[in-house]
Amino acid sequence: MLDLTTDVVSLTTALVDIESVSRNEKQLADVVFAALQDVSHLTVTRYGNTVVARTHLGRAERVVVAGHLDTVPYADNLPAKLEGTRLYGLGACDMKGGVAVALRLAASVAEPVRDVTYVFYDCEEIEAERNGLGQLARKSPEVLAGDFAVLMEPTSAQVEGGCQGTLRVDVLVSGKRSHSARSWMGVNAIHGAGAVLARLAEYEPRQVPIDGLVYREGLNAVGISGGVAGNVIPDECRVTLNYRFAPDLSEEQAFAHVREVFHDYEVALLDSAPAAMPGLSHPAAAAFVEAVEAEPRPKFGWTDVARFTELRVPAVNYGPGDPMLAHTKDEFVEVEELRQCEARMRRWL
Amino acid sequence: MLDLTTDVVSLTTALVDIESVSRNEKQLADVVFAALQDVSHLTVTRYGNTVVARTHLGRAERVVVAGHLDTVPYADNLPAKLEGTRLYGLGACDMKGGVAVALRLAASVAEPVRDVTYVFYDCEEIEAERNGLGQLARKSPEVLAGDFAVLMEPTSAQVEGGCQGTLRVDVLVSGKRSHSARSWMGVNAIHGAGAVLARLAEYEPRQVPIDGLVYREGLNAVGISGGVAGNVIPDECRVTLNYRFAPDLSEEQAFAHVREVFHDYEVALLDSAPAAMPGLSHPAAAAFVEAVEAEPRPKFGWTDVARFTELRVPAVNYGPGDPMLAHTKDEFVEVEELRQCEARMRRWL
Repeated sequence: MLDLTTDVVSLTTALVDIESVSRNEKQLADVVFAALQDVSHLTVTRYGNTVVARTHLGRAERVVVAGHLDTVPYADNLPAKLEGTRLYGLGACDMKGGVAVALRLAASVAEPVRDVTYVFYDCEEIEAERNGLGQLARKSPEVLAGDFAVLMEPTSAQVEGGCQGTLRVDVLVSGKRSHSARSWMGVNAIHGAGAVLARLAEYEPRQVPIDGLVYREGLNAVGISGGVAGNVIPDECRVTLNYRFAPDLSEEQAFAHVREVFHDYEVALLDSAPAAMPGLSHPAAAAFVEAVEAEPRPKFGWTDVARFTELRVPAVNYGPGDPMLAHTKDEFVEVEELRQCEARMRRWL
Repeated sequence: MLDLTTDVVSLTTALVDIESVSRNEKQLADVVFAALQDVSHLTVTRYGNTVVARTHLGRAERVVVAGHLDTVPYADNLPAKLEGTRLYGLGACDMKGGVAVALRLAASVAEPVRDVTYVFYDCEEIEAERNGLGQLARKSPEVLAGDFAVLMEPTSAQVEGGCQGTLRVDVLVSGKRSHSARSWMGVNAIHGAGAVLARLAEYEPRQVPIDGLVYREGLNAVGISGGVAGNVIPDECRVTLNYRFAPDLSEEQAFAHVREVFHDYEVALLDSAPAAMPGLSHPAAAAFVEAVEAEPRPKFGWTDVARFTELRVPAVNYGPGDPMLAHTKDEFVEVEELRQCEARMRRWL
């Protein structure tokens, strides 16, 4: 059993020590569900290994506080270990610290000024279709309804607004195959890809201000492949690009931009995910930013805040832990950040 | 049993109809060995599936006439089929037509003006270490001794002198890994490879005259690979180059040249094979060129003539069949070329 009345550092330690690598969240979801069921001011519902707890105070606003229960694979980094000011262990940073803060608030803030929906979900670290928040958004979007959402991903206790969108395309360069001993009979597609790479090297990514945040884009090759055999002039070379785009573009607009940059090549879309607007102009968001005393920054990586944007819920990332430590063997969270996040969010609610 | 007294077209047909895809040459080697053993003016020796037949007339010069018995894999192109002026079938072009010409000469030219060593060998179409001529060169080089050699690869009955050398290297481009959402934190190695490709596109290959032949070189990318994951700025890109070099360069000199062109990159040698000098200044070679009434041309692809060069035996390619048809499903040989090659080589011997 989890003790939600203990301090946030002990609670984080307890959460880390219940291993919950993606697809193995059942035990952790069980104890989270049981602990929240004991809290009289909450209504608790379970969807698979996703647990949702809600207050019902009839407030004018409702906010969502969400965090994922799963972690990346074990890397000889359990059990949790407190060393000086740092708590080490699998998921300490990404994101059991944030989950501990949310559980503490859920259990102890009985009369928040805004109604709150707490969401603890599974399968964030693996393929998108398994994502518990995504499944909830598709099957029961009303559960996620609200005026504003906080996703407790590690941000070093800074407010990171919205997130960039991302899309991947293949740019195909064609040539004409020939024997490499008679290379002048062919057209070398790999040599041809040099012009694609030069265009990427010269490309100047946009820096887009939105709600006072500057989103810095990027258009990059993340893969290249070409070649038939060691004695053949290749007739095809494939450059895989990743475009990280600011929230002023839809996925369709972003793809159109990449096609325009490479208008003289065949461009095939591989996958894409939408950007998320920071939504900092909403009153609940402004109150949040003021309460947590953080200067908002743009979020560059794609996160689940985009799922809230698709449901028209403005959302930010805010949580304890340095995002650069996420997915590292030696991830840790500063205990001071845990306490600070809890105190400031408590003030907001 | 093979009938070596039949005409060269019938003999080629019989050879094609004995399937001898690489590693399956035993049956063909058996019948070739048996047929040559019946020829009283020849001494016949067998080395695995390689058959060697020699005249011993005490002539001032000895020449080597060689051809491989194997073919590339079956492609629904057996049995042999005569259509108009063309004989179709697996190996008709590469190179059972040439083998038939050599067998006809071996059986019927009892008193050549030069002593002749006929070599029929296995495993030319697969990995180099299996090559029957190469094995003979390593284990019993004295068997291949001579003043001049003719390799009966398809050349459309033209004399193709020597051959280019070939080497492969990897050019490595380094960068610095980062998350693609923060691409400005990294250095994209694939973008960096653009400069390698631009240098290749601008490279002006040499055209080198030797013995009146012009060897046209080539320096080409034959492969490229790079990329860590769809969301990572890659820290390495590998460009595989193939340099086809003229016979005035040794393998070492050729490698030094490539290192010089890419002096500012890490260059790793993958493999190499030496070029072969045409050797057309040798009297036996001059007599051959005159007898076959062909204007010598340079050979661009690497062939087993280079094995003779390593044994200090000048060598040329000469045989029936269009080299562009080699390894194609619909390969054929013009019957007129079969007859012409036989008649002209008979005149030479």
